[in-house]
Amino acid sequence: MNLIIDIGNTVAKLAVFDGDKMVEVLRGSNHSLDCLTILRHKYPIKRGIIASVITLSNTIRRQLAEVDFEILELNYKTPVPIANHYKSPQTLGMDRLAAVVGANYLLPGKNLLVIDAGTAITYEFIDAEGRYWGGNISPGIYVRFKTLNACCDKLPLIDRRGDLPEFGYNTETAIRAGVIKGMEFEIAGYIRLMQEKYPDLLVFLTGGDKFSFDTNLKSIIFADRFLVLKGLNRILNYNVK
Amino acid sequence: MNLIIDIGNTVAKLAVFDGDKMVEVLRGSNHSLDCLTILRHKYPIKRGIIASVITLSNTIRRQLAEVDFEILELNYKTPVPIANHYKSPQTLGMDRLAAVVGANYLLPGKNLLVIDAGTAITYEFIDAEGRYWGGNISPGIYVRFKTLNACCDKLPLIDRRGDLPEFGYNTETAIRAGVIKGMEFEIAGYIRLMQEKYPDLLVFLTGGDKFSFDTNLKSIIFADRFLVLKGLNRILNYNVK
Repeated sequence: MNLIIDIGNTVAKLAVFDGDKMVEVLRGSNHSLDCLTILRHKYPIKRGIIASVITLSNTIRRQLAEVDFEILELNYKTPVPIANHYKSPQTLGMDRLAAVVGANYLLPGKNLLVIDAGTAITYEFIDAEGRYWGGNISPGIYVRFKTLNACCDKLPLIDRRGDLPEFGYNTETAIRAGVIKGMEFEIAGYIRLMQEKYPDLLVFLTGGDKFSFDTNLKSIIFADRFLVLKGLNRILNYNVK
Repeated sequence: MNLIIDIGNTVAKLAVFDGDKMVEVLRGSNHSLDCLTILRHKYPIKRGIIASVITLSNTIRRQLAEVDFEILELNYKTPVPIANHYKSPQTLGMDRLAAVVGANYLLPGKNLLVIDAGTAITYEFIDAEGRYWGGNISPGIYVRFKTLNACCDKLPLIDRRGDLPEFGYNTETAIRAGVIKGMEFEIAGYIRLMQEKYPDLLVFLTGGDKFSFDTNLKSIIFADRFLVLKGLNRILNYNVK
């Protein structure tokens, strides 16, 4: 079995894969991998992979050194089963690369827009020939709520759950509708832009945040919360052979 | 002549109007109105109005007390020449109200979407009958750059000026394209949504940030950097009669 570790800007995810099947996933702190012990006692893990968008803490370095199987630390030199045309691969977030690999593995031979809505929201394009060309980064949903509260004297921190009118009728609904509808317009804008160029476009949406889209868009969107983990599992298997 | 003071989350703007004509505008700190003295010695100012989205500093309170003409402090009880249907008028940002009044004054009898791209970006709708129904708030362009840098370990603070590809090929262009194109998709999304409901819709865009739109949208967008100031001048004159 494979152990997959994805260290993000807010949380870490640890998952165990049996072949292509994810058998368990746990979320926890991105400073200490406390569930690592649980997973390695529970499953016969043969190998692991770790990808991080933050500098690994000493605690995590120590925890990784304690395991009795090899852990591949994903970096820009690691061979991957796609053609990476990003101009500065050494600065490409490994989560972004993993999401693209995961999408291409799940739907090979398709023109794909890969959207990962986490702390940041990222938009990546990989074409039907498996060539990755680059992508965009903008603030994720929670960060948008937080920054409105931080930047603007009289704006409170708003919970994303609650009444969501088209236009806000008070501060709370103005911010909730402003942030959520703004992100939906942004996501729909990317999909429509790429659909004009690639009429057969398909879209992966990952990262856990839920959005509403009209039926036309919805029909080409595949929601997969675990795309990054699946991509990392694919990269690990690709490097075993 | 009228003195108009607009205190925002980042800067203060002071302007002098002769009738409907703005004869001078100055920008400065939102904690101290140092250019107030210059303006009141240079122009025969008869009255003033102040609108603020932050709590006024003691320095500003003192500066306002020193002038020899009356200054109207805009609040939710001030009579305005539109019908305000916002459900909690006491929490409505006075800059948002002023932008809507300004738009309705400049293009009366039109269905208007009013977009103010400042520290936050706000979207307001006022119908052809002069009824304001509410609006949305989301983070402005600079705040989006800043929050990406703050939230994400390896993301630098990016300048909005520079190469702007469709999809980024390195971290800098990924963030610049991500933030700017994201906002353009967001703005275009609102315009198209409201155009479906009001085919004769016109759009005011204020706040100073520049964006690119396709020709169809561009043809109905009126860019006016001073819409809030013009709205405040209108409110002041409305209260003099």
